Amino acid sequence: MTDRRFTPVTGTQMPRYAGAATLMRLPLVLPGSSDWDDVQIGLFGIPWDGGTTNRPGERQGPRQVRDASTMVRNVNRATGVNPFALCRCADLGDSPVNPADLADSMLRIERFVDDICTSGIVPIFVGGDHLSTLPVMRAISKHVGPVGMVHIDAHTDSWDSYFDGQKYTHGTPFRRAIEEGILDPKRTVQIGIRGALYADGDDCWGRDQGIRVIDFDEYKRLGVEQVLRETRARVGSQATYVSFDIDVLDPAYAPGTGTPEIGGMTTFEAQCLVRGLEGITCVGADVVEVSPPFDTSGNTALAAATLMFEILCVAAGTVSKANR
Amino acid sequence: MTDRRFTPVTGTQMPRYAGAATLMRLPLVLPGSSDWDDVQIGLFGIPWDGGTTNRPGERQGPRQVRDASTMVRNVNRATGVNPFALCRCADLGDSPVNPADLADSMLRIERFVDDICTSGIVPIFVGGDHLSTLPVMRAISKHVGPVGMVHIDAHTDSWDSYFDGQKYTHGTPFRRAIEEGILDPKRTVQIGIRGALYADGDDCWGRDQGIRVIDFDEYKRLGVEQVLRETRARVGSQATYVSFDIDVLDPAYAPGTGTPEIGGMTTFEAQCLVRGLEGITCVGADVVEVSPPFDTSGNTALAAATLMFEILCVAAGTVSKANR
Amino acid sequence: MTDRRFTPVTGTQMPRYAGAATLMRLPLVLPGSSDWDDVQIGLFGIPWDGGTTNRPGERQGPRQVRDASTMVRNVNRATGVNPFALCRCADLGDSPVNPADLADSMLRIERFVDDICTSGIVPIFVGGDHLSTLPVMRAISKHVGPVGMVHIDAHTDSWDSYFDGQKYTHGTPFRRAIEEGILDPKRTVQIGIRGALYADGDDCWGRDQGIRVIDFDEYKRLGVEQVLRETRARVGSQATYVSFDIDVLDPAYAPGTGTPEIGGMTTFEAQCLVRGLEGITCVGADVVEVSPPFDTSGNTALAAATLMFEILCVAAGTVSKANR
Amino acid sequence: MTDRRFTPVTGTQMPRYAGAATLMRLPLVLPGSSDWDDVQIGLFGIPWDGGTTNRPGERQGPRQVRDASTMVRNVNRATGVNPFALCRCADLGDSPVNPADLADSMLRIERFVDDICTSGIVPIFVGGDHLSTLPVMRAISKHVGPVGMVHIDAHTDSWDSYFDGQKYTHGTPFRRAIEEGILDPKRTVQIGIRGALYADGDDCWGRDQGIRVIDFDEYKRLGVEQVLRETRARVGSQATYVSFDIDVLDPAYAPGTGTPEIGGMTTFEAQCLVRGLEGITCVGADVVEVSPPFDTSGNTALAAATLMFEILCVAAGTVSKANR
Amino acid sequence: MTDRRFTPVTGTQMPRYAGAATLMRLPLVLPGSSDWDDVQIGLFGIPWDGGTTNRPGERQGPRQVRDASTMVRNVNRATGVNPFALCRCADLGDSPVNPADLADSMLRIERFVDDICTSGIVPIFVGGDHLSTLPVMRAISKHVGPVGMVHIDAHTDSWDSYFDGQKYTHGTPFRRAIEEGILDPKRTVQIGIRGALYADGDDCWGRDQGIRVIDFDEYKRLGVEQVLRETRARVGSQATYVSFDIDVLDPAYAPGTGTPEIGGMTTFEAQCLVRGLEGITCVGADVVEVSPPFDTSGNTALAAATLMFEILCVAAGTVSKANR
Amino acid sequence: MTDRRFTPVTGTQMPRYAGAATLMRLPLVLPGSSDWDDVQIGLFGIPWDGGTTNRPGERQGPRQVRDASTMVRNVNRATGVNPFALCRCADLGDSPVNPADLADSMLRIERFVDDICTSGIVPIFVGGDHLSTLPVMRAISKHVGPVGMVHIDAHTDSWDSYFDGQKYTHGTPFRRAIEEGILDPKRTVQIGIRGALYADGDDCWGRDQGIRVIDFDEYKRLGVEQVLRETRARVGSQATYVSFDIDVLDPAYAPGTGTPEIGGMTTFEAQCLVRGLEGITCVGADVVEVSPPFDTSGNTALAAATLMFEILCVAAGTVSKANR
Repeated sequence: MTDRRFTPVTGTQMPRYAGAATLMRLPLVLPGSSDWDDVQIGLFGIPWDGGTTNRPGERQGPRQVRDASTMVRNVNRATGVNPFALCRCADLGDSPVNPADLADSMLRIERFVDDICTSGIVPIFVGGDHLSTLPVMRAISKHVGPVGMVHIDAHTDSWDSYFDGQKYTHGTPFRRAIEEGILDPKRTVQIGIRGALYADGDDCWGRDQGIRVIDFDEYKRLGVEQVLRETRARVGSQATYVSFDIDVLDPAYAPGTGTPEIGGMTTFEAQCLVRGLEGITCVGADVVEVSPPFDTSGNTALAAATLMFEILCVAAGTVSKANR
Repeated sequence: MTDRRFTPVTGTQMPRYAGAATLMRLPLVLPGSSDWDDVQIGLFGIPWDGGTTNRPGERQGPRQVRDASTMVRNVNRATGVNPFALCRCADLGDSPVNPADLADSMLRIERFVDDICTSGIVPIFVGGDHLSTLPVMRAISKHVGPVGMVHIDAHTDSWDSYFDGQKYTHGTPFRRAIEEGILDPKRTVQIGIRGALYADGDDCWGRDQGIRVIDFDEYKRLGVEQVLRETRARVGSQATYVSFDIDVLDPAYAPGTGTPEIGGMTTFEAQCLVRGLEGITCVGADVVEVSPPFDTSGNTALAAATLMFEILCVAAGTVSKANR
Repeated sequence: MTDRRFTPVTGTQMPRYAGAATLMRLPLVLPGSSDWDDVQIGLFGIPWDGGTTNRPGERQGPRQVRDASTMVRNVNRATGVNPFALCRCADLGDSPVNPADLADSMLRIERFVDDICTSGIVPIFVGGDHLSTLPVMRAISKHVGPVGMVHIDAHTDSWDSYFDGQKYTHGTPFRRAIEEGILDPKRTVQIGIRGALYADGDDCWGRDQGIRVIDFDEYKRLGVEQVLRETRARVGSQATYVSFDIDVLDPAYAPGTGTPEIGGMTTFEAQCLVRGLEGITCVGADVVEVSPPFDTSGNTALAAATLMFEILCVAAGTVSKANR
Repeated sequence: MTDRRFTPVTGTQMPRYAGAATLMRLPLVLPGSSDWDDVQIGLFGIPWDGGTTNRPGERQGPRQVRDASTMVRNVNRATGVNPFALCRCADLGDSPVNPADLADSMLRIERFVDDICTSGIVPIFVGGDHLSTLPVMRAISKHVGPVGMVHIDAHTDSWDSYFDGQKYTHGTPFRRAIEEGILDPKRTVQIGIRGALYADGDDCWGRDQGIRVIDFDEYKRLGVEQVLRETRARVGSQATYVSFDIDVLDPAYAPGTGTPEIGGMTTFEAQCLVRGLEGITCVGADVVEVSPPFDTSGNTALAAATLMFEILCVAAGTVSKANR
Repeated sequence: MTDRRFTPVTGTQMPRYAGAATLMRLPLVLPGSSDWDDVQIGLFGIPWDGGTTNRPGERQGPRQVRDASTMVRNVNRATGVNPFALCRCADLGDSPVNPADLADSMLRIERFVDDICTSGIVPIFVGGDHLSTLPVMRAISKHVGPVGMVHIDAHTDSWDSYFDGQKYTHGTPFRRAIEEGILDPKRTVQIGIRGALYADGDDCWGRDQGIRVIDFDEYKRLGVEQVLRETRARVGSQATYVSFDIDVLDPAYAPGTGTPEIGGMTTFEAQCLVRGLEGITCVGADVVEVSPPFDTSGNTALAAATLMFEILCVAAGTVSKANR
Repeated sequence: MTDRRFTPVTGTQMPRYAGAATLMRLPLVLPGSSDWDDVQIGLFGIPWDGGTTNRPGERQGPRQVRDASTMVRNVNRATGVNPFALCRCADLGDSPVNPADLADSMLRIERFVDDICTSGIVPIFVGGDHLSTLPVMRAISKHVGPVGMVHIDAHTDSWDSYFDGQKYTHGTPFRRAIEEGILDPKRTVQIGIRGALYADGDDCWGRDQGIRVIDFDEYKRLGVEQVLRETRARVGSQATYVSFDIDVLDPAYAPGTGTPEIGGMTTFEAQCLVRGLEGITCVGADVVEVSPPFDTSGNTALAAATLMFEILCVAAGTVSKANR
């Protein structure tokens, strides 16, 4: 039964453009609030782009996605899932960050997410650049051990370093996560990879660790059903993280991002892909790399919000199954 | 033979960006003009968004589509149809409206279209929000009786009410039309429906009345040929209205609309769909929900103008057959 | 002493782009909340443009101004006033509205503001179109009687009717207010009026009622000091409403509005004007006609937010004096 | 008495955003129309940027200004003039042009304007780049002899040539006009000139011919009253052309132009300047260099339309005096 | 072995947004430079839109594509080709043009490209409107004789004339090239043609000359593999020019162009098409009709830059084979 | 006499939109180039926003200003100065930076500028956020000792720290510079300061050190002549740095910046102010805080480029006097 405290405001009562914007029009439940302990899935923002080596602006992603997410409704027409009926969701606000200090920001984020996990809340955030995922994964893995990952992206984000030894950027989080033992490469699938390489062999490291990399070309050849079969087989029923980089979408669908690559996925393809993850054990998730200053049409934020809803439907399945 | 009075200005004489913009560069034939009685298909605008419950701006649609429509040429490359050779078309200007009074606007629109129908002109309008279709349908049905409908849209627009009893919004026109007996649900097909629901069962009413609802997912599975076969079978050879809500297109193709939903149709798919309607008995049509303030690239207006041309080709077939 | 509950989040702790956006980063205190009764000045939005006869979009004003208002800081450098130290301020959320019914919207707004006044809270809202001011003034005058007004605007908004008898539009609120006896024309000053007229004598009615109308031309000739002397003399120490229509600013400063007029005020001039109102008895105020879809640079929302802060400083003076 | 045929559509009947856009909502009276001979002042467009050496797009100026000009009303609040009551005005459509041939375009424009002058209509056009003024001046001077000129611009547009001998560009029209003897430099005033020079002495030629050049710096020192006194003295009561290059405005007020220069005029200053020309003998006029693709806010077109109205008020004075 | 002089700056050393922008971050080697004679493939711009009959702005294409091209990396992920390892590439700057004289511009361009060819450099340019291709083809054919062509475009650009006899516009280059005997229609394939016609039979001339025209509809039916088979068979191993008009892409992917047509190609489809040309004998190429003022999202320039890289990979194959 | 190597490309030969964009169309003279030692004034970019606590994007400033600066011509109309005739100027490219490491970036910048100073070149850069000025000043002061400063800005940028102890942000450079003894507060003037404060007394530190702070209000009261007199008296004839933060301009003039404040300076006022610095001993300068993603009209970059030219005129005076 639905808890009225955690029900989104409906657009048939209060128009969608009205009211202060929260994620999916859920209540704002900040740390320390009395409702905090009753939340099962916590949506939040990481307003940070300290790891970006390209066009910035991802720090503004959470606020713009909050605005766009007021267009989201309750019931997934394709799957029938109503995540707000399945579990108690809330907007937990934004993680603390320090825009002028990368290392300090990563610590602040890790602490914020650690508190969330400690309360038994499943964290789903909107970024922020992709380096944000590293401290989130650190916090989660403290609670559930190394995770598998469904990683949907145009880039593998597994480079070693930039600028003569810079180890922490939005192009390196998953190399670091594997090195730290918090991400299991054997249970990791990267889908949608495309775009030119800096140099031959740029892309080998991840495959060598055991990651299953499905380039966008291969994705088109295999078809979504085969991709999903392989993906589900890889990640199995163990703890899995879902990371969705908005630049997997073609820039026609998502212009507002820092490293756009032409020749990408449509939103319809992305929806089919995420919906097909139903049944995995989702212990955390994100939608990252939304950069509002480049989102001239607002489509990127809308796509991010809607795909966050699709991911929420998957996570709500995990949570409700665990509580049955 | 082509009547020179009703021939569009050609871009090889007067550049397309030149001159005051009229729909498809046709002559402006306002009510009372001496040429009025010779018009067979009347294009016009309904500059109104009084029924919108979301982002507004559709009132500005007709003017922006007039501008974009100056890019349209004469002969449909795919079908070979030249509507301006088949029948006498004109831009009838815009319907009167009252932006501060919903009921009064609906009356003004109905009277304007009633005059058009009385002169034997087939009305095709560019909106305006989708509630505009209701008074247009009221006027048409006075002349031809209840109509069937090919309704291409992301939403069924068959909700009951908003805001504690508000019966007339852009989300309710077809519920009202069926209740009023001017739209025959058995001869109605809704194509392209997608997006989340407010609540379970939201979508049942229309199906219960006998509407054939083809979700976008089902459309992708069936393919356009099968969808067209079913559609033509449903509407048969009786009077049929064609309503095209621009939000059926993916926001990548049509950002300028009030209720965008990701995961939608491409313009190529929409063109194939509309072209496949050739041969139906088209007694009226519209392209609605174009909101210029959100049309940052101008693509939405261009899509609306070009699809209006595609629909005009279908309607010209009806008119020229009737006059043969 | 400052009540920590009502202190804005500071940008030196949480970056200004972070967190869900509320008006001036104040806490969201919705009706029914336990903190409601402690609020002294209530900021809120009226997300409505049902009265607009021109370009719409003002319904989206409150949300965009919330976003921009996170740039506001605490202490007015020019006057030294810190309104958050002087009294307890909060974001009360948005008034209920019905976008498809003008009369119903006016009732909902009046009820919402009546509740605010009943709790002894001074209402300051961001619109919304200028018709919003009418129901707000109705509610306020129930509690304090007829008000005087400092009205800063490009237009007098005192027309009689549009569209053959439409009495309620954003061009008519002050004619109605005077007719209803809730606005005292003798204590009303209109500053900044400019732009062409529909017809000779358009502008006489207000002057005939006793309003002091200071055209922008006259304002430039008199200088701000003389204008302020006259204004303060007119409104005296009795209950006064401050209405700031953003279109008083030149469109170079505020492009995002429905009826822009070139040749207008700079933001510096507007700040000097509002600051000069210090000492009047402000019983309510607004900043209206912000239309985000036309605010391509975001400057309009920033101007609205900053001028709302200037007005808040004036109102905080009234409240703190009353409580001394 | 006002001739109903030539009365602008009013915004209190038909909203300003409604209907096909014509200049100031006047009737479209194309060459050959039966109403043509009754027109006294003809507004039209020259959709051409063939002379531009910088950013293009001025060819789209007329259509965008038509759209913006629907915001114009009838009576000049500052001067009391109602040009539509003083004389019969119409939108004559656009001049023919050939976007791929500069010389051919100039011939087409000259012929079009010659026909206007032959009918005794005073031509006022919206450009188009500044080279458009040359063929217009050629046509006018055939009928009234050499003209004087009030030229309001950031640039003198009196360079000799570009690109190794290119004599006809938007930087050269007035050098050519003086050489051709159709513009009297002694009766010419250039106001608002600013921006860096290509080389020392760039600016001497015009002054050597006797043009009174008032740099923007000097304009600020002298004040508008002194500038107007000198200007009126120079041009006297003989035939005078008014040319208004929108780039005289600061780019904050008019971003949509090809050669923006910072440090320019406000629209308020421009309005005061144009209004002060009342009483001169205006035989033709223009507003040029509006480039819609760079007019991100629409302010440039609005400024152009409103200043065209101000110029129309001046010209209407000339026409009505001549007919008294 | 890679020559360090001709190596692009890498984004892992100097961020992609840093430094003056050159094509693909290659060194700028202007005519007369000492490195000129070592260049094998010369990328350059033609900043010219003198032939455009529609929306202009293509003159600004080269600079914007330079900016976007700094996002390009070195190794084609799909084909493994690293063009910068295969041959020495450079940015040769822009061709001289005369924006106010069409014929003079064509001469300047032809001379510039003649110099390139004389030095044995393969020319690949970014336009500019499509008429630019004519003088380029004239220069190339002087060196290699008549060429075949792979022409990817929404339009055949083979019209005869505009505006009563204007023979040179962006709609006519290939009619002229065939008439001049520098383009072999039997070895020419046009792919992606769509959009309405001015009149019946508009499209026949090219087919009558022997061009293989593959409408976008036919392209969708045949599939890319079949289209490529036919294309390769047509052009054979003789000298072939590749002309890519960005408007072949759907406006959702490339809004920034002068004559957009809905219902077009995705960038993924375009990439597959160009990649499939590997092995032809590419003697010159272009990407044209990028109009930055209409490229609100920057996607058009990014698509142009990335497709230029794909074409460069094909040309590098030709050059490296010739030098083996 | 002018050295042809260091002469800007002129717009009367090569249109301003043509060619790869360099600062003021000067030659690109990168470190190591043979021409390096002959440069007297070096323009360059610092593509970095690592210190920004607000909206980012300043890292893209240099490239956009390069583009806009191609509009600049040679001779200052107001002062007659031609800086390119007075001394040898060049575009030195961009400083190395590390977008993911603040401290490392500051070192890279300092080293780059140290090399410039060592070669006797006067450095003038375009930012980049205001923290960039700190390493530049460190490098300069190594060569000339502590500097005085004319600081034109909306903010004093002399805060102590953010986010619990973050000492290096764009809000703190001048506090650090004074603490390090490289900036002499007694010879420092801050002009144009405005905007609310975080807390009372926020602003005292600088005044306590002896900085002359001229708030924008005071600037308006004193007038530019009085402000200049005081400024020149303060900085005297000793080494002086000029720092121009673009946010001193009103957002109507410069929307593209991270911390906009309404009520600011016009570009005309800014030009008069900078021109009045002629005669000071300028040893370095900057224009900072240009954020292209928010510069929707391009006006900010144009203002930055033109004001950089004005500052260059001042610096050229210093250099040419030193060399006489």
